[in-house]
Amino acid sequence: MIIVGELINASRKAVGEAIKQGDSDFIKKLAIDQTEAGATYIDVNAGIFVGKEGDYMEWLIKNIKEVTKLPISIDSPDPNVIERGIALNGEDAMINSISLEQKRLDTILPLIAGTDLKIVALCMDDEKMPETKEDRLKIADILINKLIQKGVKLENIYVDPLVQPISTDITYGKGFIDTVEAIMENYQGIHTICGLSNISFGLPERKFLNRNFAVMAISKGLDSLLIDPLDKKMMSNICAAETLIGRDNFNVQYLKAFRKKKLEV
Amino acid sequence: MIIVGELINASRKAVGEAIKQGDSDFIKKLAIDQTEAGATYIDVNAGIFVGKEGDYMEWLIKNIKEVTKLPISIDSPDPNVIERGIALNGEDAMINSISLEQKRLDTILPLIAGTDLKIVALCMDDEKMPETKEDRLKIADILINKLIQKGVKLENIYVDPLVQPISTDITYGKGFIDTVEAIMENYQGIHTICGLSNISFGLPERKFLNRNFAVMAISKGLDSLLIDPLDKKMMSNICAAETLIGRDNFNVQYLKAFRKKKLEV
Repeated sequence: MIIVGELINASRKAVGEAIKQGDSDFIKKLAIDQTEAGATYIDVNAGIFVGKEGDYMEWLIKNIKEVTKLPISIDSPDPNVIERGIALNGEDAMINSISLEQKRLDTILPLIAGTDLKIVALCMDDEKMPETKEDRLKIADILINKLIQKGVKLENIYVDPLVQPISTDITYGKGFIDTVEAIMENYQGIHTICGLSNISFGLPERKFLNRNFAVMAISKGLDSLLIDPLDKKMMSNICAAETLIGRDNFNVQYLKAFRKKKLEV
Repeated sequence: MIIVGELINASRKAVGEAIKQGDSDFIKKLAIDQTEAGATYIDVNAGIFVGKEGDYMEWLIKNIKEVTKLPISIDSPDPNVIERGIALNGEDAMINSISLEQKRLDTILPLIAGTDLKIVALCMDDEKMPETKEDRLKIADILINKLIQKGVKLENIYVDPLVQPISTDITYGKGFIDTVEAIMENYQGIHTICGLSNISFGLPERKFLNRNFAVMAISKGLDSLLIDPLDKKMMSNICAAETLIGRDNFNVQYLKAFRKKKLEV
């Protein structure tokens, strides 16, 4: 599983505070903890600081790079911020995200055209939020095509079919995972990714629902997740799901997690 | 979800003992507990008592029927035992199970032909255990056809694609759930069912794996399970999965389980 560690996000109160105070130790610790917990990328989001987002993005990335070799996921809709982030990274960085919203597409596509950057392709356009599997697939197909045409490799594309709350419409969960399945079948070598928390919006025991939804999405082929890698129950569920779906040769990862007492069941 | 409560099985030590002692209170309590925990059927299995299986099956069913209105799942490979079980039940009983093994097919098919009995159709024949999705589907197709030809309604068929241990072959989990998906798509109105414990054979934290596998199978369309309905974690996972896959209108069942403090997360 490709785990994008979501903790360095300025919209989390403690992180926003640390950024304002210039508390680099706090940020570094989050980077180290996520690395040790098994993250593949460290997501960095300074989006709440309008006007200062670029400066803070640079400061965060520099601090993170001092303590981990993991690649960064540059999490911003602003092409200028993304460009500054790219300048501090090699092409192993992930850009989170492009979409079919015209402005976002026009400004971000040139930044990644012909590069080896990884790109999260969010199934959203200017018209409306996708509601059905068909809505999602239609946007995904167009977006994937545009990326491929600009020289982005299929294996660098992480399609996010957009998780929406089942408290709003009980078909949203199935619509999402069925889209994952279709994309993984139609485009061999592509990735699918999502954040989870929207699924449980408005319902109790949200983390419990999020974990179970992760397991369901993995069973349909999802191979990447934007999550808190310090959430042991979530990581245990992912570990079990990976083993059960046949991605864990000889069940080695599962047995290792068990022996290291990392499974929280 | 259709829950077949598995606890009244003579191979469980305490149950076997209760049967030998004629301890009807013990059996009745298991029937009541499973009913209250949300079972749809009460499975009855006296298979370990060779020669006495039919007598014990009758005794068990009579006792169970004194305390619950739930239909019985008559769990035996022996047509004589099944026949005696059927005589004590209406056609709302479930027969667990028929398969493509010639002897089993020839003896059990006449018992259910043209009736309204529910039947578990196990994906197994005389040649070998199915290993791939294709193996499973091939057996399922033949078996479903034979049942339909004999006047069994599609909605009374519960296909069990046969769970096998992922410790033996890591593809068995995906092979199973992909078969579930194909059957549910190909035969509108049919059911799919399984026991879970084989999936985790040979691995630690088996209940944890079993629960996660249930969630994965539900995401592919599985609608029936042979489980211990007193296992609160399992029941909570099933409840979450049902909500997430869109089977719970307005999330009512999930919210009810939460309010009644039935969710163990």
